[in-house]
Amino acid sequence: MSHKTLNVGIVGYGFMGRTHANAFRKVVNFFDLPIKPVLKAACGRDEAKLKDYCDRWGWETAETDWRKLIDRKDIDIIDICTPNDSHAEIAIAAARAGKMVMCEKPLSMDGPQGEEMVREIEKAGVANMVWYNYRRVPAVTFAKQLIDEGRLGRIFHYRAKFLQDWTISADLPQGGAGLWRLDAAAAGSGVTGDLLAHCIDTALWLNGNINSVTAMTETFIKERKHSLTGQTQEVKIDDACAFLARFDNGSLATFESTRYARGHKALYTLEINGEHASVAWDLHDLHRLQYFDHRDRGNLRGWRSIHVTDGDHPYMSQWWVPGLQIGYEHTFVHQVADFLQGVASGTPAAPTFRDALETQYVCDAVLDSAKSGQWQNVKHV
Amino acid sequence: MSHKTLNVGIVGYGFMGRTHANAFRKVVNFFDLPIKPVLKAACGRDEAKLKDYCDRWGWETAETDWRKLIDRKDIDIIDICTPNDSHAEIAIAAARAGKMVMCEKPLSMDGPQGEEMVREIEKAGVANMVWYNYRRVPAVTFAKQLIDEGRLGRIFHYRAKFLQDWTISADLPQGGAGLWRLDAAAAGSGVTGDLLAHCIDTALWLNGNINSVTAMTETFIKERKHSLTGQTQEVKIDDACAFLARFDNGSLATFESTRYARGHKALYTLEINGEHASVAWDLHDLHRLQYFDHRDRGNLRGWRSIHVTDGDHPYMSQWWVPGLQIGYEHTFVHQVADFLQGVASGTPAAPTFRDALETQYVCDAVLDSAKSGQWQNVKHV
Amino acid sequence: MSHKTLNVGIVGYGFMGRTHANAFRKVVNFFDLPIKPVLKAACGRDEAKLKDYCDRWGWETAETDWRKLIDRKDIDIIDICTPNDSHAEIAIAAARAGKMVMCEKPLSMDGPQGEEMVREIEKAGVANMVWYNYRRVPAVTFAKQLIDEGRLGRIFHYRAKFLQDWTISADLPQGGAGLWRLDAAAAGSGVTGDLLAHCIDTALWLNGNINSVTAMTETFIKERKHSLTGQTQEVKIDDACAFLARFDNGSLATFESTRYARGHKALYTLEINGEHASVAWDLHDLHRLQYFDHRDRGNLRGWRSIHVTDGDHPYMSQWWVPGLQIGYEHTFVHQVADFLQGVASGTPAAPTFRDALETQYVCDAVLDSAKSGQWQNVKHV
Amino acid sequence: MSHKTLNVGIVGYGFMGRTHANAFRKVVNFFDLPIKPVLKAACGRDEAKLKDYCDRWGWETAETDWRKLIDRKDIDIIDICTPNDSHAEIAIAAARAGKMVMCEKPLSMDGPQGEEMVREIEKAGVANMVWYNYRRVPAVTFAKQLIDEGRLGRIFHYRAKFLQDWTISADLPQGGAGLWRLDAAAAGSGVTGDLLAHCIDTALWLNGNINSVTAMTETFIKERKHSLTGQTQEVKIDDACAFLARFDNGSLATFESTRYARGHKALYTLEINGEHASVAWDLHDLHRLQYFDHRDRGNLRGWRSIHVTDGDHPYMSQWWVPGLQIGYEHTFVHQVADFLQGVASGTPAAPTFRDALETQYVCDAVLDSAKSGQWQNVKHV
Repeated sequence: MSHKTLNVGIVGYGFMGRTHANAFRKVVNFFDLPIKPVLKAACGRDEAKLKDYCDRWGWETAETDWRKLIDRKDIDIIDICTPNDSHAEIAIAAARAGKMVMCEKPLSMDGPQGEEMVREIEKAGVANMVWYNYRRVPAVTFAKQLIDEGRLGRIFHYRAKFLQDWTISADLPQGGAGLWRLDAAAAGSGVTGDLLAHCIDTALWLNGNINSVTAMTETFIKERKHSLTGQTQEVKIDDACAFLARFDNGSLATFESTRYARGHKALYTLEINGEHASVAWDLHDLHRLQYFDHRDRGNLRGWRSIHVTDGDHPYMSQWWVPGLQIGYEHTFVHQVADFLQGVASGTPAAPTFRDALETQYVCDAVLDSAKSGQWQNVKHV
Repeated sequence: MSHKTLNVGIVGYGFMGRTHANAFRKVVNFFDLPIKPVLKAACGRDEAKLKDYCDRWGWETAETDWRKLIDRKDIDIIDICTPNDSHAEIAIAAARAGKMVMCEKPLSMDGPQGEEMVREIEKAGVANMVWYNYRRVPAVTFAKQLIDEGRLGRIFHYRAKFLQDWTISADLPQGGAGLWRLDAAAAGSGVTGDLLAHCIDTALWLNGNINSVTAMTETFIKERKHSLTGQTQEVKIDDACAFLARFDNGSLATFESTRYARGHKALYTLEINGEHASVAWDLHDLHRLQYFDHRDRGNLRGWRSIHVTDGDHPYMSQWWVPGLQIGYEHTFVHQVADFLQGVASGTPAAPTFRDALETQYVCDAVLDSAKSGQWQNVKHV
Repeated sequence: MSHKTLNVGIVGYGFMGRTHANAFRKVVNFFDLPIKPVLKAACGRDEAKLKDYCDRWGWETAETDWRKLIDRKDIDIIDICTPNDSHAEIAIAAARAGKMVMCEKPLSMDGPQGEEMVREIEKAGVANMVWYNYRRVPAVTFAKQLIDEGRLGRIFHYRAKFLQDWTISADLPQGGAGLWRLDAAAAGSGVTGDLLAHCIDTALWLNGNINSVTAMTETFIKERKHSLTGQTQEVKIDDACAFLARFDNGSLATFESTRYARGHKALYTLEINGEHASVAWDLHDLHRLQYFDHRDRGNLRGWRSIHVTDGDHPYMSQWWVPGLQIGYEHTFVHQVADFLQGVASGTPAAPTFRDALETQYVCDAVLDSAKSGQWQNVKHV
Repeated sequence: MSHKTLNVGIVGYGFMGRTHANAFRKVVNFFDLPIKPVLKAACGRDEAKLKDYCDRWGWETAETDWRKLIDRKDIDIIDICTPNDSHAEIAIAAARAGKMVMCEKPLSMDGPQGEEMVREIEKAGVANMVWYNYRRVPAVTFAKQLIDEGRLGRIFHYRAKFLQDWTISADLPQGGAGLWRLDAAAAGSGVTGDLLAHCIDTALWLNGNINSVTAMTETFIKERKHSLTGQTQEVKIDDACAFLARFDNGSLATFESTRYARGHKALYTLEINGEHASVAWDLHDLHRLQYFDHRDRGNLRGWRSIHVTDGDHPYMSQWWVPGLQIGYEHTFVHQVADFLQGVASGTPAAPTFRDALETQYVCDAVLDSAKSGQWQNVKHV
């Protein structure tokens, strides 16, 4: 078949704007795709920054109003990289205009808003996906394969943490460019939506639905200056959040996230203990999967540090040769490749909006539990 | 001064009987003590096993009834190594007879029983100690020194886990010799009293009192054969327990223990994140302390793997030379040394019965919360 | 200044052809460069493969004869990615035609050939560079900074290894596409030129010149089928090579490389021990530098595992945020960036042909010593 | 059978005097032995220190002249813990007196002296052993089992290092108590006899005889004050030594030792690469064996970190329970146990004097090669 193309219009040029642009540009060099993305238009409010962004990444055209971008006939995919509080409005407008939608995580500010997004996107019948990129770290995808093979057997325990330390200083302001994650109005929540949402998305994928949770949150620094107004204001996001959970499959879980764990930059870790085998992974050495198999001969049992860089590891045949690592940015390339394969094949790549709504429900239950001090059942999609 | 001696009478010759005997024998070779222990008498019900035990370790005499042991005038210290359900009776009788008492952990079956023990031991005014040995791993003691120095600053997070995998097989029986830890009647609880009690003791020592907890427990294998009766019976202990906690100092904590974590033999881990620095430690490499100091030059910051084997590390000047590890058994030697120093100096070595009661209160709150599904405040000593 | 561009013509579309193409494409997205590379032409003998390569990477035009490529007026830089036996001829022709030359490592088949290349390239006065990419792993570049700062002090020891295991099977053929590294006629040598050359290049950069060496080599599998002829032939390359060395600065070194180290895919490791501090690094976790500083307080000394992903680490401000790894391919991007900066500034980026000739001299001395059984002095540039 | 005993007379009460005393005392608590050692007499020149040593360890009697010790009828075993220069004289006298002899490593000052010792000891027909204790680290013994099982297959590579950093300061004196290792007259050589001898002993045991070597040595600090005379004198020992070797089985090896490797206290490491599997071990985490097995399923291959603490690991059934480490001192306990088992069974425990002489020959070849700059063939026993 002749190579088909799809024109991408991206909204937002911040950190995620860079990771997505890189993915759209690079995917064709490494993956044989039935459909190729074209970096057609980028949209942002600051014209100078927008121009720089387009020049640097090769976006063909620029728009300063996302509604105009959505109106354009030559745009097939709207890719949303804006702060959380604008996801719903843009996504719904794009869906109504018949565009495919790729949306940064978390899907929405909360479950009800997410429900509306799912309703609209499914009514429009357009391809859709949420950028929970860590599913596509080869070592994590490989863990999924091992679980699906049945190598772990019955699961007893799931553990996940996402630890950072960049907001410990009381002098760090909240809000504004680069700091909207500290502003509850823009972000919806703190570490729960920003970091735990990643942990939850992966967990639901690897271990099925969560039944119920009990949680606690904390805001260690109660007031911070706002970077735009200069006013000292109450900090309304959660600096840290931990919760216990029970999965539908009977396994127990602990989840934790914080931006006050001195010494950890972006330490997302997970571990799963099954009847026969266990796996563990962390983002600071993302190219390795730790694997323990009880079926190994007794005195030869040990945690294997698998360097997930071989051709028979997920995605890795497309990259270099055994032993040579890839990194963070490649997860986005994988996601684009899978999204486009999904569009071509008719089998949508996960996580869709619907999949991501389930994560939203868990976040809601967690935040509710932190307030109520009660176990909360998780609503399901 | 001339070397004074104290005569020890031990009750129980099981696994703990071995660790204590080794400690009493060995401490004089490595530590200069004002008072030396004498392995005077061992007590157990099985005469043949008792004789073997005495022969192997050099206990001078044997008794098959612990009450007779306590009656003996030549015994100064009663050391209790029996299953948990007999700690109180023996300890109280010993205290009333004016003996010093060293008691295996956990102190008691629950808080109220522990309160009675503390009341009696303090009324008797005898030296007392509970064998929470992991405080005296040099790397853990060193962590305590660093905290006391103020190197960590304000504490934000505490994390502890104790993971094992030895009860996963459904064929493992419960109860009886070597398996009393699986029998609720003898053990009181499962992993909570057996493993989490260690984690809690260390945590209280390093990070102060716990204010409140919310917990969950699970028994994965619901029925097991009893090793003595051969009958299949309900399993009443907790196979796994996890809880969230808030400390009085404002820090948040997660605790977890299980015997269903495939791949982990005795993986007690702890991590503490402070404003300026963090420490982490695990029992599978007990001779190392991980340390991160934010005050290091920015681009030179990293987790330091400190091989805690130098002469200026706690206890290590008594052992070998830098780089040469000690192991598990040495923690008991340190505890004996400190206990005897405490007796000589009049400043009791911790944890005393009173200290250990605080751990018992936390365990009670955890088990209560697991039943009620509510946050529980922790009673304090 | 207005952005200048330079047109690149690449020769070879194999593994290195991919790494270079990716680097030329990607560098402009991440680095602000005074001169930008244009992927103008690719050259290779197999037209179909060449077309695929051009399509995939966006090379504007194709040539099947490298002489024609060199003749083209619109080409500014010739980038050589062919097997070692053709480096000299192409590089010299390109230099004589006034092209800048970027050449894959090793520079040449041996020292004398390298001398001729240096003579010609310097006579032509064109910018030149050899792709010893591992210098530009951020952790390795950071090690260089620490050494230059004087943090290590007097150097006592240097250790490097490059271990692989991909040729252990006796069934693996030699020669032909993808296997020319096993063919002495095409490669010049085995692991010495392929792997040790990397170790030597880094070592000369970090620790200065090598004075003398004593070496041994081995070919474990003596005969292999040739992949093109099907004939069983003597294997003439070295499967393994180890040597001892003395540097001009008085430090001692061990170097080793093999393709028979079961369990290691591409494990390039190095360690340097200085009076005050030591560093260690390995390619399987290339984003970390291990650092030990004796000036730390005595009981707090330990190897720091520095996650070299912060903005104040070399090159890292151009990539993502702290904690997020980059990988293998990025080293080539850095090299292009530095080469172009060097062209613009007039200060050539290292290693130049002249720098790479020094590595060639060490390789020659190593191979000579392996034959003679004698210590060999290293010729210097 | 009734328990037989053997009376031990030890010569020397320094660091090794402590490790041996501990082993003799402790072995009966952990091992069921056909013959039990009795700590009968200790011998040393300083009466006060000797008394302390006897008191601390329970040696029944004291002697200040080793000849008198040897003359005593009640001594069955002479255990030599003195500096290297007195091993031969004491061992030969003891053998002639019909005593069993246990001798600290290295056996002798050089090969010829060692030959005389072997001749005399074998003429006397007495049980004999040299304390190369690292063979009996459970992880190392386990490696031996795996090799003997054939799990590694044909061996290609052997690598060993012993790195320390305690002599870097130029202010450290040479000679005298605690420092005789820096005095060539007492020690014979520097790191070669002190550290590399350990590496060589293990290597010969695990991988068979060494055929030939080429070596280099260095003395970084040329002059030091003598601790007794206060005079600044030339340092005559080797501070560092590295050598290449070829084993009889065709494998290649690198060996290195130094006391100038900043950051390493006592880092003895070894790695063996076989056709099918590899093993690696280091003394800083002595309870772990790293194991890679190529026969694992392709995408599940990884280095296993085996925590060598299970009942089916060598020696470990005698100690605690899985997951609980033992340390350095235990290797000596194992050696005593094996020696006594050997005496009882008539199959001598290795390494005997004869075994240890082979190590001496390798050391001689290494030191000769370092002087001559030539490859040296190793003399064999």
